[in-house]
Amino acid sequence: MLVQNKNFTTIWHDDESDKVKIIDQRLIPFELKIVELNTVEEVCYAIKEMQVRGAPLIGVTAAYGMYIAAKENSDFIYLKNASEKIYSTRPTAVNLEWALNKILNNIDNVKKDDLPNKILYLANQIREDDINNCKNIGEHGYKLIKNIYEKNKKPVNILTHCNAGWLAAVDWGTALAPIYVAHKKNIPMHIWVDETRPRNQGFSLTSWELLNENIPNSLIVDNVGGHLMQHKLIDICITGTDRTASNGDVCNKIGTYLKALAAYDNNIPFYVSAPISSIDFNIKNGILDIPIEERDGEEVSHIVGMDENNQRTKIKIVPDGSKCVNYAFDVTPAKYITKFITEKGIIDPNFPSINKLKN
Amino acid sequence: MLVQNKNFTTIWHDDESDKVKIIDQRLIPFELKIVELNTVEEVCYAIKEMQVRGAPLIGVTAAYGMYIAAKENSDFIYLKNASEKIYSTRPTAVNLEWALNKILNNIDNVKKDDLPNKILYLANQIREDDINNCKNIGEHGYKLIKNIYEKNKKPVNILTHCNAGWLAAVDWGTALAPIYVAHKKNIPMHIWVDETRPRNQGFSLTSWELLNENIPNSLIVDNVGGHLMQHKLIDICITGTDRTASNGDVCNKIGTYLKALAAYDNNIPFYVSAPISSIDFNIKNGILDIPIEERDGEEVSHIVGMDENNQRTKIKIVPDGSKCVNYAFDVTPAKYITKFITEKGIIDPNFPSINKLKN
Repeated sequence: MLVQNKNFTTIWHDDESDKVKIIDQRLIPFELKIVELNTVEEVCYAIKEMQVRGAPLIGVTAAYGMYIAAKENSDFIYLKNASEKIYSTRPTAVNLEWALNKILNNIDNVKKDDLPNKILYLANQIREDDINNCKNIGEHGYKLIKNIYEKNKKPVNILTHCNAGWLAAVDWGTALAPIYVAHKKNIPMHIWVDETRPRNQGFSLTSWELLNENIPNSLIVDNVGGHLMQHKLIDICITGTDRTASNGDVCNKIGTYLKALAAYDNNIPFYVSAPISSIDFNIKNGILDIPIEERDGEEVSHIVGMDENNQRTKIKIVPDGSKCVNYAFDVTPAKYITKFITEKGIIDPNFPSINKLKN
Repeated sequence: MLVQNKNFTTIWHDDESDKVKIIDQRLIPFELKIVELNTVEEVCYAIKEMQVRGAPLIGVTAAYGMYIAAKENSDFIYLKNASEKIYSTRPTAVNLEWALNKILNNIDNVKKDDLPNKILYLANQIREDDINNCKNIGEHGYKLIKNIYEKNKKPVNILTHCNAGWLAAVDWGTALAPIYVAHKKNIPMHIWVDETRPRNQGFSLTSWELLNENIPNSLIVDNVGGHLMQHKLIDICITGTDRTASNGDVCNKIGTYLKALAAYDNNIPFYVSAPISSIDFNIKNGILDIPIEERDGEEVSHIVGMDENNQRTKIKIVPDGSKCVNYAFDVTPAKYITKFITEKGIIDPNFPSINKLKN
């Protein structure tokens, strides 16, 4: 997608320099900085410290991490250790495990010397698949937006939470893919962007994406969505998912559940863009079985932004001596989700429909 | 209540200097600054710019504003104009109108020269009544907390949104009054404090109040409450109200509605501490009939805190060119409220119960 009218993706292998490159998302929206990943340590740091984030992108980054590991040492033991190190960086997104397994399961009969190239080939393939899957999610979801537009004949108001845009994937995104496809097909829209405390991915990333693509949007704090829905200022909600249980429960950025409740209370459709890689077929019940990541309280107590001199500054917004608790995700029960938008079409949030995607 | 082990109230008339004094709440939790209100302009500024805030305190401040007006000029026309000026500062809290009318309706037969003293007497009375009403709300609400403690025999987990503590009133507060009474009666509690974006009254004010009173509390972003309720980490929710409709709908700080939905979904009692002064008997339906204040987008796009050098700093947290929309309140339908805690006891959130309080 566009950044200052130039096309970017979030991660790529630069063939000329043989380097894996990413956008350091911690600096967005204030700076666009490209960073090289040269070691497994740097890959782990990038995922853990959220230079890259978003379930699909974490998976792709992990795949390239295995290529970087294989260049360091292509012993299988070393690779297995590297994959465990990478796996331990973030506990919620299932894509991480999915991508690592995809690599490990496809190198059994590969000669040691060929391993780096084989893994690079697999990582590139995972990256390409992600782009295609997101594009397909966009095409399927676009029809939902088009239908609302054709019914109301006025700009479609869409609420999204956190960032499930192209920055969360390689390109297109998941929740934002239908919006990008609709925009390219000239459907007028207005996006309500949730701030998404504590890390503010809505304000920092989603709004930056939409501004760069020239899609009308308004920024609201996380408390506002319910009020907007009561007053019919939202036609449809679309969010992403970090882990989708086989019963249709969705583990996504903290606060998603509250918006789903409000949508349900106001009869507003609540869709989740879920690439098949986000589905954890082993999880039968999202609320009981998905571990919820607790992150550092400093993400809650401190905020980074630009001061009056346009200097990046971190401020503390809580009194001395206070204790902050930081749950990063919550689980939205399937009953509050209208449907899933997957790369294979729009499906019901229940076990039979989800299980059909398993192969 | 206590600030660094010394008792404070939010507003008082200093008899010695004949000055009305307030705590400038914009500086809390980082600084305790006492400010004098000397002119009607200063009173309007204090309310509009939120040096004072919270429905009960706004009412008391308006009453003292009329005393200040009468000292400037005790012509009835001047006083009427002053009351209109003060009334226009904030549109949501009904206490503002209630306090101004209480003054205007009680000075009809007062001689012009006696007006300042009469209005000071009335304002002092409104202030005293507020303290007593809050104390009574505390006594009634305390029983709810005590019952939970006696049932579970472990610290009672309470969620509150925004600040409806003593800083929102004169002393005790509304939502926090039951907590203060329970604390003085040695009931162990742990309070979950919602940040309450965009103005962060939870982090700045509620947590500061609780820390000063030495009541255990944890700070969470507004997105977290639903997750906590799903996992039974909250026993009871208590919030305040800025305007209570006669059908039991509650207009309170934006985001209250979302927490009420989550409480309902998880069978957790959701109480609203509502002094009778917060009830607008003319409003039949909160969602349709209560105007919702829209405030400056800069409250959303910028945050104030302490930088690394302990300097008060304002930072911008959104990209250039973005548009922020700032609704300050929402309406929680009566069906999601368990009961109201009033100074006259605990009542049902419906017209017959509420209407009995009218006299």
